[in-house]
Amino acid sequence: MTRTVDLNADMGESFGAWSLGDDAGLLDIVTSANIACGYHAGDPDVMAATMKNAVAKGTGIGAHPGFPDLQGFGRRRMSVPNATLANMVRYQLGAAQAMARAAGGEVRHLKLHGALANMASEDAEMARACYQAALSVDPEIIVMVLAGTAQQQAAQELGCRTACEIFADRAYNDDATLVDRSLPGAVIHDPAEAGRRMVEMVREGAIITASGKRIPARIDTICLHGDTPTAVAIASEVKSALQDDGVNLEKFGGSVL
Amino acid sequence: MTRTVDLNADMGESFGAWSLGDDAGLLDIVTSANIACGYHAGDPDVMAATMKNAVAKGTGIGAHPGFPDLQGFGRRRMSVPNATLANMVRYQLGAAQAMARAAGGEVRHLKLHGALANMASEDAEMARACYQAALSVDPEIIVMVLAGTAQQQAAQELGCRTACEIFADRAYNDDATLVDRSLPGAVIHDPAEAGRRMVEMVREGAIITASGKRIPARIDTICLHGDTPTAVAIASEVKSALQDDGVNLEKFGGSVL
Amino acid sequence: MTRTVDLNADMGESFGAWSLGDDAGLLDIVTSANIACGYHAGDPDVMAATMKNAVAKGTGIGAHPGFPDLQGFGRRRMSVPNATLANMVRYQLGAAQAMARAAGGEVRHLKLHGALANMASEDAEMARACYQAALSVDPEIIVMVLAGTAQQQAAQELGCRTACEIFADRAYNDDATLVDRSLPGAVIHDPAEAGRRMVEMVREGAIITASGKRIPARIDTICLHGDTPTAVAIASEVKSALQDDGVNLEKFGGSVL
Amino acid sequence: MTRTVDLNADMGESFGAWSLGDDAGLLDIVTSANIACGYHAGDPDVMAATMKNAVAKGTGIGAHPGFPDLQGFGRRRMSVPNATLANMVRYQLGAAQAMARAAGGEVRHLKLHGALANMASEDAEMARACYQAALSVDPEIIVMVLAGTAQQQAAQELGCRTACEIFADRAYNDDATLVDRSLPGAVIHDPAEAGRRMVEMVREGAIITASGKRIPARIDTICLHGDTPTAVAIASEVKSALQDDGVNLEKFGGSVL
Repeated sequence: MTRTVDLNADMGESFGAWSLGDDAGLLDIVTSANIACGYHAGDPDVMAATMKNAVAKGTGIGAHPGFPDLQGFGRRRMSVPNATLANMVRYQLGAAQAMARAAGGEVRHLKLHGALANMASEDAEMARACYQAALSVDPEIIVMVLAGTAQQQAAQELGCRTACEIFADRAYNDDATLVDRSLPGAVIHDPAEAGRRMVEMVREGAIITASGKRIPARIDTICLHGDTPTAVAIASEVKSALQDDGVNLEKFGGSVL
Repeated sequence: MTRTVDLNADMGESFGAWSLGDDAGLLDIVTSANIACGYHAGDPDVMAATMKNAVAKGTGIGAHPGFPDLQGFGRRRMSVPNATLANMVRYQLGAAQAMARAAGGEVRHLKLHGALANMASEDAEMARACYQAALSVDPEIIVMVLAGTAQQQAAQELGCRTACEIFADRAYNDDATLVDRSLPGAVIHDPAEAGRRMVEMVREGAIITASGKRIPARIDTICLHGDTPTAVAIASEVKSALQDDGVNLEKFGGSVL
Repeated sequence: MTRTVDLNADMGESFGAWSLGDDAGLLDIVTSANIACGYHAGDPDVMAATMKNAVAKGTGIGAHPGFPDLQGFGRRRMSVPNATLANMVRYQLGAAQAMARAAGGEVRHLKLHGALANMASEDAEMARACYQAALSVDPEIIVMVLAGTAQQQAAQELGCRTACEIFADRAYNDDATLVDRSLPGAVIHDPAEAGRRMVEMVREGAIITASGKRIPARIDTICLHGDTPTAVAIASEVKSALQDDGVNLEKFGGSVL
Repeated sequence: MTRTVDLNADMGESFGAWSLGDDAGLLDIVTSANIACGYHAGDPDVMAATMKNAVAKGTGIGAHPGFPDLQGFGRRRMSVPNATLANMVRYQLGAAQAMARAAGGEVRHLKLHGALANMASEDAEMARACYQAALSVDPEIIVMVLAGTAQQQAAQELGCRTACEIFADRAYNDDATLVDRSLPGAVIHDPAEAGRRMVEMVREGAIITASGKRIPARIDTICLHGDTPTAVAIASEVKSALQDDGVNLEKFGGSVL
């Protein structure tokens, strides 16, 4: 039986005169791209260029909506009513769809960004509001969720097409949450270690926590962070390690949970 | 033979805590609504509410993109490369499409706003860039153009579905441009006069200038400004006057020029 | 012995094409104005016009900084590091100082707006960061604090010039916090009642809670909300009632707590 | 007689998560820094950090206001009424003053940025509106003007303290305007050539055009662009070449023209 997994990364996070991330390098590796939609990063020109490159590579295109907070890069929590969040998600998704269509592609998935993602991973109600909003625009859209969080629960309850995600470069606690960035070992910087971990987790179909505990999980896609200096090196190593282990790398299908 | 014309107005121009215009009053009168897309006015909540109301009334929904300039309400000219303008139009159109779809409707036309519209009415190249951008997102979209301007020329050259527009409350020069707002008589404030003018122009199929000259023009729709204090009174009177003259008021079909 | 109190209201909350509040009406009543600084409301033109009017009336000018959130009017909580908040306060205060100076006036006090004020009234650390930032720009600035909250505590610890504020139109809990807006009686809509309450509290030098409890408090200024429909009627009645009771209405001195 | 000149560069042009320019490298070379004020680049944190570094180096601090256009980096022309421009300049200058004061420094000069600078160099009325606005906030501020342009004319008419600027890396036409960037030789990329040119111009007290013509000019400061890859190399070479020629490098005095 062939094991298949998707590799995803955030992209299109430049803005105006400011460049960020090695999108070209990552596009050679990932099978899905989460493209910023102008609220926390990205502008229409950046979106157009990123969409065009993703279409050229055959990379799966995702809308990556965030809070309306350029200065904070969408990483600052904001208390926004769910009904407003829903409209913000619709707005950003629609903008991304138009940019994708003009580039000859289509948006096939949605992944929440930054503080919005963090809050939604703790609050199923908020996650549901965001996902329902996306589904009200495109009922076939695939929702990418953080495996084992309230995001996954919301997607499951909605019965929508879903892709479950784990992180290549972050250590896990025993409840499937991420080890706080301020703690030692929270972030994996060594490409080889990241590669080994991913091979193991994909083999076992489980999140392996810092303590060694196994949490069974559907693993559809692996997140390769885009904005760290070693992003491309880690991405490249994770890809090779998985391929060497016989794993097939391709866009997720997005079946219902 | 039945004469038919559309009545349109700008809407959804509130933002956050700030309200503007009598959208509810105008929605009872117009057959098409040009809805702001967040760049010069409107936010996702305002868009959602406006779309919902337009769907409930059966009003034709249009995206109304403008320059990214909230403080200036999109009325300040900006020199933006056409390629960037194109992406800004795509972005705003896509956002509007998503909001419309979530409200159970669809965007059927596009009308440029404010300084962007003014510049495009003088610059066919710019108009074409904006319209092509919209068509790259939706090839069936109807482009609303200012009759007799470079906007109309651009739409004609593109061969796209088009609706030609005249103004109910503005006086015209002999070259079909609008009399400058700073000159006396440039803006018609008297509802009765606005009504008479529109009846006459629709009857004759011509723009009637301040000097009395007739400029033959296809008249698909009449713009009723949304942000003037007398907007609803003028709109209401124009509607009655046209109906009394046997004119059928309904959404434009958007045939090719 | 003459009793003296200041009346303050938020102003300059229009933005671009959008008007909000009856600043002219309130300026005839209040002795201090809290002027928005462009982050949650106000733009340089609105600030300039508001400053000019305040200078003409001899009204005390205050900077009223908020979160960078126009759509949310600064009423949505954001989790921003205190060091960044401090810089945001400096930035907005400096902008207000320049506008005041150009209008022939000066900024003499600072009052936090909306969600920033709410958070700072619960978190003395955050309040201190904001007030210290203001003092780093102007050591003589008077900090307006919500009487009985962490804001007051922070100002007391800093030993800075302070003005303690109570609300004319809000009911109080027994711990000096405000009754939640969602509860009946939380907001006082009757001008006469607001007037009576303020006379009583100023006479007794105490916050009188909904249950009738007295919490002794220094009362330097009374907040008359600017953005409610009855704002001017309440402001006017509070003013008359206090004057009838022999209270002198003038700008606070801002002595140290 | 000692010849003295100032070296200036634009700084603080990062924004949020996005870095731009080698401010640290340039701060070791220049004697004056033009610091972005949040409208086209810079945010309160970036401003605070840049001010702090400038104060530590003893570099002269300037406010560098631009159009409110982050996506366009203030390089897109906008048609804004002069009265509004004046308020925008006041706002940005005030914000910069507060940030400088909190860092233990002070804003001593003002230089317009990007499209605002270009427009003001062609339009003395606009330049005057901007400079008068700055003077209404600080009558002692030194206005940095492009030598030989309408900017200089406006400063001369106002009789304000002024610093006249030439460019190290741009070729000049015979009317003292800059050779259009699209033409060959418009931008000098070779540090050695830039150094030689500056030595010659400072020696002769004249702008030397591409054709070899001499236009006598007061040269108070030399602009070293901050955002080009070779910025630091050119800056460093210009500094050495001038010092080798016996020129004293220090902050301009800002005498009246």
